[in-house]
Amino acid sequence: MAGIPESHADLIGAPHLAHLATTNKDGSPQVSPIWLLRDGETIVFSTTEERRKTKNMRRTPTIALSIVDPENPFRYMELRGPVVIESDPDKRLPPELWRLYVGQGEVPGDSETRVIVRFTPTHVVAVAPPA
Amino acid sequence: MAGIPESHADLIGAPHLAHLATTNKDGSPQVSPIWLLRDGETIVFSTTEERRKTKNMRRTPTIALSIVDPENPFRYMELRGPVVIESDPDKRLPPELWRLYVGQGEVPGDSETRVIVRFTPTHVVAVAPPA
Repeated sequence: MAGIPESHADLIGAPHLAHLATTNKDGSPQVSPIWLLRDGETIVFSTTEERRKTKNMRRTPTIALSIVDPENPFRYMELRGPVVIESDPDKRLPPELWRLYVGQGEVPGDSETRVIVRFTPTHVVAVAPPA
Repeated sequence: MAGIPESHADLIGAPHLAHLATTNKDGSPQVSPIWLLRDGETIVFSTTEERRKTKNMRRTPTIALSIVDPENPFRYMELRGPVVIESDPDKRLPPELWRLYVGQGEVPGDSETRVIVRFTPTHVVAVAPPA
């Protein structure tokens, strides 16, 4: 993926959690954990229309992600860039993420309006552990 | 600590990383991993005057933190609230955090201007795993 060094490419996707930052209406930040999946030159994740993070991304369609190697907290990556919000009427993405992150059982159903957020990283900070 | 349920109080401090979100000048968010320490009714962490996160907090002194239990990613907490930036001329906080998070060796020296960020959580979202 453009801008992401080979040394850190494995951090994108299961089993690694990402922390998604968005901007609230009053200009303060919000952050929450998400599961994600690489899709070609973009990163996709699932959320619902009703959540604060989605409302924030509709207002300010630029996000930041932080991903840390749980085995070595000195190896991590910060990504920033624009998002596009797509509809997911068939709720296609949640079971795929569940399979990759949980691997057993089934994703709990929900009655919310699922969306797919497609993120293109344009700024990448990849931090390596000290030698 | 006010607003933080007993079920999630252990997530504050070592060995748990937090992800700190701040707001950039253009209104987009920024997020990066930090170490932190509970200090009475506040949470403190260390950074330097030169970093983007510090410039962001001087402009918008409200932050958000996300902390996930590495043993159970369904147990996590999101905190929001104001920060106050204090000077740390003797670089007192970094060795204390290093001792708690790394436990051996010494924190690498740096020539930057260290500050202590004191955070008071005013909004807490504590998420528990499904029963």
